[in-house]
Amino acid sequence: MRREHLSAFIFPSTDPHQGEYIPDHWKGREFISGFNGSAGTAVVTMNAAALWTDSRYFLAAEEQLKGTGFKLMKLKVDGTPTIPQWIGRECGPGAEVAVDGMVNSASSVKELIADLRKEGGITLRTNFDPLAQIWYKRPPIPENKVEIYPLEYAGETAHEKIVRIRQALRQKHADGMLMSALDDIAWTLNLRGTDVHCNPVFVSYLLISSRSATLYINKVKLTPDVEAYLKTEGVGVDAYDNVKKGLKDYFEYNILLDPDEVNYTLYKSVTREIVEEESPVKRMKTVKNETEIAGFRSAMLKDGIAMVKFLSWLSGYIGKQEISQLTEISVDEKLTSFRAEQPLYRDISFDTIAGYGAHGAIVHYEATPETDIPLQPKGLLLLDSGAQYLDGTTDITRTITLGPLTEEEKKVYTLVLKGHIQIELCKFPSGASGTQIDILARQAMWREGLNYLHGTGHGVGTYLNVHEGPHQIRMEWKPAPLVAGMTVTDEPGVYLAGKFGVRTENTLLITPYKETEFGKFLQFESLTLCPIDKTPIVLEMMTREEIDWLNAYHQRVFDTLSPHLSEEETAWLREACAPLGG
Amino acid sequence: MRREHLSAFIFPSTDPHQGEYIPDHWKGREFISGFNGSAGTAVVTMNAAALWTDSRYFLAAEEQLKGTGFKLMKLKVDGTPTIPQWIGRECGPGAEVAVDGMVNSASSVKELIADLRKEGGITLRTNFDPLAQIWYKRPPIPENKVEIYPLEYAGETAHEKIVRIRQALRQKHADGMLMSALDDIAWTLNLRGTDVHCNPVFVSYLLISSRSATLYINKVKLTPDVEAYLKTEGVGVDAYDNVKKGLKDYFEYNILLDPDEVNYTLYKSVTREIVEEESPVKRMKTVKNETEIAGFRSAMLKDGIAMVKFLSWLSGYIGKQEISQLTEISVDEKLTSFRAEQPLYRDISFDTIAGYGAHGAIVHYEATPETDIPLQPKGLLLLDSGAQYLDGTTDITRTITLGPLTEEEKKVYTLVLKGHIQIELCKFPSGASGTQIDILARQAMWREGLNYLHGTGHGVGTYLNVHEGPHQIRMEWKPAPLVAGMTVTDEPGVYLAGKFGVRTENTLLITPYKETEFGKFLQFESLTLCPIDKTPIVLEMMTREEIDWLNAYHQRVFDTLSPHLSEEETAWLREACAPLGG
Repeated sequence: MRREHLSAFIFPSTDPHQGEYIPDHWKGREFISGFNGSAGTAVVTMNAAALWTDSRYFLAAEEQLKGTGFKLMKLKVDGTPTIPQWIGRECGPGAEVAVDGMVNSASSVKELIADLRKEGGITLRTNFDPLAQIWYKRPPIPENKVEIYPLEYAGETAHEKIVRIRQALRQKHADGMLMSALDDIAWTLNLRGTDVHCNPVFVSYLLISSRSATLYINKVKLTPDVEAYLKTEGVGVDAYDNVKKGLKDYFEYNILLDPDEVNYTLYKSVTREIVEEESPVKRMKTVKNETEIAGFRSAMLKDGIAMVKFLSWLSGYIGKQEISQLTEISVDEKLTSFRAEQPLYRDISFDTIAGYGAHGAIVHYEATPETDIPLQPKGLLLLDSGAQYLDGTTDITRTITLGPLTEEEKKVYTLVLKGHIQIELCKFPSGASGTQIDILARQAMWREGLNYLHGTGHGVGTYLNVHEGPHQIRMEWKPAPLVAGMTVTDEPGVYLAGKFGVRTENTLLITPYKETEFGKFLQFESLTLCPIDKTPIVLEMMTREEIDWLNAYHQRVFDTLSPHLSEEETAWLREACAPLGG
Repeated sequence: MRREHLSAFIFPSTDPHQGEYIPDHWKGREFISGFNGSAGTAVVTMNAAALWTDSRYFLAAEEQLKGTGFKLMKLKVDGTPTIPQWIGRECGPGAEVAVDGMVNSASSVKELIADLRKEGGITLRTNFDPLAQIWYKRPPIPENKVEIYPLEYAGETAHEKIVRIRQALRQKHADGMLMSALDDIAWTLNLRGTDVHCNPVFVSYLLISSRSATLYINKVKLTPDVEAYLKTEGVGVDAYDNVKKGLKDYFEYNILLDPDEVNYTLYKSVTREIVEEESPVKRMKTVKNETEIAGFRSAMLKDGIAMVKFLSWLSGYIGKQEISQLTEISVDEKLTSFRAEQPLYRDISFDTIAGYGAHGAIVHYEATPETDIPLQPKGLLLLDSGAQYLDGTTDITRTITLGPLTEEEKKVYTLVLKGHIQIELCKFPSGASGTQIDILARQAMWREGLNYLHGTGHGVGTYLNVHEGPHQIRMEWKPAPLVAGMTVTDEPGVYLAGKFGVRTENTLLITPYKETEFGKFLQFESLTLCPIDKTPIVLEMMTREEIDWLNAYHQRVFDTLSPHLSEEETAWLREACAPLGG
């Protein structure tokens, strides 16, 4: 830094592709600070170092930063300075600080430049990556092979998708676009990879113009089959590092760049006019075609079978002292083993959250050998898990009774279930956004002064990332309209720190409901097939309509899954799906 | 226009103060086109003329524009060009068109300039008002006297309010502001006027700096008492037309201007740095103090008494042939006469909507001698009305059974009532916006494929405008948070064209509900006191909770109003408030 005359360097949690999970090669913030949470920004000056993260990670960060010299900065806590404010204080006016423009989105760097200017005219350099010099054992960029995602699951060829993308670009008066979101590229080209934990994507860029499409990728990742396939689909190939040159040589009038997706360095290397808009691929990808929907149904059937086998197995321990032979990690492993037996199983879709008792109240808890605890024959186990099958991705949360419950546990469980069911029952005009319907999941708990601070739902990819946008169901304003064919989760929860957590989640499909003089109306259909624990339900708190929904859902779960189960499992399922409330 | 080398002139529906209702002096669009709806824009070129308005006014505009040469342009209908598109087509590239910058907001003119530039580089002049030359019998700007709004109703002196406004400005790093919204000025200064139909405001501007405050007003409007009062409160006075000069002479570092409020001409006359932000006064005004809330309760009691006297009188006609002696206009007059008997009554707060049968389905219907129809002993009468009392403003809608109803009328009425009650029952965290809770009013009707395209609720002023922002309950995104002390209406409806309309509206107060580890929660309390017609209710469609709310509300209405009623009226009210569903 001294050699470069820099006062500070900023290490973000992002990579050149702005993904949620990132390859180890780009985990520079973890390398420099030791903190391994999914969200956090480290800043190093000549004399000080600090790390900003949010409330999910306060405890973990405190632990991991011990002895590193990094000061923990708690985001959204009164008195915590912003990064620019802190740099202003530490480095003084006129200082120059740096980020690596390759691993920060164009929009985030532009915002940072403006904010630093306000702190005494601090300037920002964006062409410097200190990690290249100091990170000796840096993991390489993955060189894993790419595989073709068969048309029998994708339902639309890459060529057809590129034609549709070009149409969408023309509507935005754009001649081409640069795609850098790895799941968008995988979806567009009907290719999948193994470069990122839980996400079947591969590191690359895709440049689409009005007449050509070029995949920038390390060629060792391509088998002859894939190379031939890309040729057939009309997609050229160039080296990963040539993307900058590709942008320089791009010769059309303008190019669409999504400033939240494309990194700053590539954004600035463009010489043509930039159309700054959300990538049209994001929305296209979220609306599933008939083949993808059939794949989801198949994947959900298998996932339901695995879940029921697991729950039936677990039921042998419930209320018994023997349950202490099980731990959070061991039940996760057992569940994964049932999933792995299913056809087309590839991987889990995210790190399982298995939180027993007070651990269930830690929203993003992931059991480690250090935190893992034995189960006890009482209280609630929160289990949020999912799988990647070749025909679809799953995401399900169940909160499971392990023995006697407190009145508070029963009441909170019932409030969360009421919220879940109200979303399942919701009908809404086409074009409504997730923000408009979010309250249905919360109204019952709000009346009791309870709430949860995460979103209520997110899209789910087709053998792709388990989090897929831009539509969401949440309190904050998300304008993306809900459209028939989208998947979205329904996952309200309540977390009482030090006590327990409850969440109940199904993945839903948006389908047409009815058309009247007031327009088209949509509804939800549960794709997830798995009983919801009835033990904790306080019947008097449920409306007739809510009970009816639960009974009908359970009937469907039983009818669909029971042909695929053993006699013993079927007996357990029959009981689990028996009607509530007579 | 030819002399000025102009190709077109645009006449908006707005005035220099961007109010919803405007003095006759500024009804230039009505003068030029003959169309008198509240929303519409006329454009005149050398060879053509057209008027844009929305679906509320298609029928009325069609009628009023007959023979004027103005072509009706239906907003939000496929194929309707925007104003810039139409001008581009009619006038061709490079043309110059004009608006009067004084009667258009800064933001609307900026948008117009950008849009016209896209249509072949058309330019806009903003310093020309053709009405000054062609409108011979133009009504003058009102010269009505201003009166002091007593502290016993306002609850806070003008001086104290100005101190608070300066604090709010400092938080936005602004040294001063120009206020041109007439209700904001009236609220700030605790003055009221009679310049605008239904709105007790007076034409003026208020310029606040860090050390002074100046009211720009035609001095004939001020009595010696008001002049003395303004001096005491630290407010100087200058002539209305001197506001431009006042802005030129304003000598602080910067000034806050709300670009949606301040007109373009004044905006452009500012020489200091402009802080472009929403006026802080808008939000301050909507949060009522204890005195104002007490005033609302008093006004609502009187309004409830007037409504019950009216409904009790009307009940003598219901189901009888004699009802045909009554018309939409005559029932409105009768209702107004009951209100006028109440202490501190000043005026109606908006033009009554009394729509019988199919007229009830016309959302902004106002009966005129030409449209007025006699009532019949069947169907529904939609009655939306309100009053200005010195201690508060009211706004209430009831849909009243006049005789036998169809099954469809009963079902729709019940769905609207369910929506109304769900808002009444809603609890929500402090900071939630109206967009988040809107669905509660609509979910029951959405399940039946019904909807309404207006908002669910708006703020109500304190002896001020019946529509008060920025908070609203509606489908579109309105970020303004709901705060304890705000008033807001709850008015879902359903309108079946050619058949009937239903709306049920109370004015609510936001109050604290409870505080937990999840923060502060708020609730609604109905300020409006008037029975809701039970006759059309389909009991099986109501939940126990909805029935309980209605019964408790009716009990409160009966207990509060009955001491103020005659024996006959009390008997009617007892029946109207009797519990439903046993």
